[in-house]
Amino acid sequence: MAGGAGALVKARASAVAAEIDKAFDRLLPLPDDPRRRLYEAMRYAAIGGGKRLRPLLVQATCDLFNISRDCALRVGLAVECIHVYSLVHDDLPAMDDDDMRRGKLTTHKAFDEATAILAGDCLHDLAFEILANEETHPDPFVRVELVTALARASGPAGMAGGQMMDLEAENARFDLATVTRLQTLKTGALISFCIDAAAIVARLAPEGRRGLHGYARDIGLAFQIADDLLDVEGDPVLAGKALGKDMAAGKETFVSLLGVDRAREQAALLVAQSKAHLHGFGAEADLLRAIADYIVERDR
Amino acid sequence: MAGGAGALVKARASAVAAEIDKAFDRLLPLPDDPRRRLYEAMRYAAIGGGKRLRPLLVQATCDLFNISRDCALRVGLAVECIHVYSLVHDDLPAMDDDDMRRGKLTTHKAFDEATAILAGDCLHDLAFEILANEETHPDPFVRVELVTALARASGPAGMAGGQMMDLEAENARFDLATVTRLQTLKTGALISFCIDAAAIVARLAPEGRRGLHGYARDIGLAFQIADDLLDVEGDPVLAGKALGKDMAAGKETFVSLLGVDRAREQAALLVAQSKAHLHGFGAEADLLRAIADYIVERDR
Repeated sequence: MAGGAGALVKARASAVAAEIDKAFDRLLPLPDDPRRRLYEAMRYAAIGGGKRLRPLLVQATCDLFNISRDCALRVGLAVECIHVYSLVHDDLPAMDDDDMRRGKLTTHKAFDEATAILAGDCLHDLAFEILANEETHPDPFVRVELVTALARASGPAGMAGGQMMDLEAENARFDLATVTRLQTLKTGALISFCIDAAAIVARLAPEGRRGLHGYARDIGLAFQIADDLLDVEGDPVLAGKALGKDMAAGKETFVSLLGVDRAREQAALLVAQSKAHLHGFGAEADLLRAIADYIVERDR
Repeated sequence: MAGGAGALVKARASAVAAEIDKAFDRLLPLPDDPRRRLYEAMRYAAIGGGKRLRPLLVQATCDLFNISRDCALRVGLAVECIHVYSLVHDDLPAMDDDDMRRGKLTTHKAFDEATAILAGDCLHDLAFEILANEETHPDPFVRVELVTALARASGPAGMAGGQMMDLEAENARFDLATVTRLQTLKTGALISFCIDAAAIVARLAPEGRRGLHGYARDIGLAFQIADDLLDVEGDPVLAGKALGKDMAAGKETFVSLLGVDRAREQAALLVAQSKAHLHGFGAEADLLRAIADYIVERDR
């Protein structure tokens, strides 16, 4: 590929990012009472910056099934709430202890730890409130399925479980299978939710979901390998955060286990494989294909 | 009142507590992988100890409408997930910095801060997963209403918003109206959810909910005044946690603003008022009445 694919993704991603920022701005007006600081911290964490890859994935998958833009936006907003809350908590001193994120101070540095913990907790609630609201979809069955899928993707059998494994990685030497499982949970579960969500809204039968599941799993792993490569070779200014942290902490990653060259090969292989899973779709899946390419070519 | 009411509440509360422990035990089997520590921390925080007042309130209100015990138990379990997660996060060094809770070490002391943050986050997800599951109620509309109500009660317009006000209370001198608002959010919102949840499941019309709302609001405030009195006069061994902390932190409470005697009077008045709101109900509301009495008479 593909300046073409990169340009397609970037144009759509920046449209999505603007929509997400606008929606957060509308959802989080500052109250004129002592809770003001909490809302300021939620807004600080949620608005501006970020690739908004997850809302983009939701929209790209919703495009396959002619799902309304409003529904896709609200589902994307809910996933982004979970993603942002997890970043706020993961950046805390007790967790990854990061000072910079998305090119600005982390939330606990810009505010304080207590406010950051609460702001993360509130974004966590907001995700489910958004999904459960009838503005997301008229059918309560669809909404309740979305809530279930997101709670699973974010909890101990998903993202948070992966984060726990990541904490344990400092005290253990994980092999490739365990690192793969860790990343399938830590970043893969939420990425898979983005694609599953569209399948839920479209009321797709299980056999129709198989290819999409495969796509999601493959781009999730490719995304993480690319992240590991950026952690070793990337530019911290472009990344907007500290790099080289996994190696310093003695954690095994795809790059430490495979080496840079084989890791890059593996990412390319996963991207090819992810696109093969979309063979049943025509041009309507071109954005999903372009996102797969973009995921391993991005510089942040 | 009422040794009689106290005995009724205690018998029912200990039955509820046993059911809740058993349900958490079944929901949280220990996995044989590096996420084990996370589940251990979730179990440590969730199982054993605690008055289980909120699940008891759910059951007592569900009794009014012949709602199934299974449904009432699962809704109570979800509220308790939120309550426990909030205790785990509130006890963190960056928040209230407590070492003891329910007579044992707080979760971050028994494990570590990172694990405690994640365990709280996972219990937070679990609450919504439980409510959204069809085992809670066959009607998805009811489930989605429960999710919405719990997300609101727990987020920035509810419990977490109250906790933010509580943090700000150290730097400000709140008046009685502001302390009332703080507590209406911090403990009242979740207590109100317990009663609202039964009304949601019973599909009660808004006019039928008015008395129950009044009951919930009054016992919520009475509960907090009793808590403030225990903080001043209680036995830390019975309480299972450190006391006297609000005064040491210079925070205004109902007791600091009203004095012990007037605070006690106000609690008694709220209890009487809460029972008056139940005038439309007969003997089927006796447990709710007994809970109101118990709330101000408890020693922990």
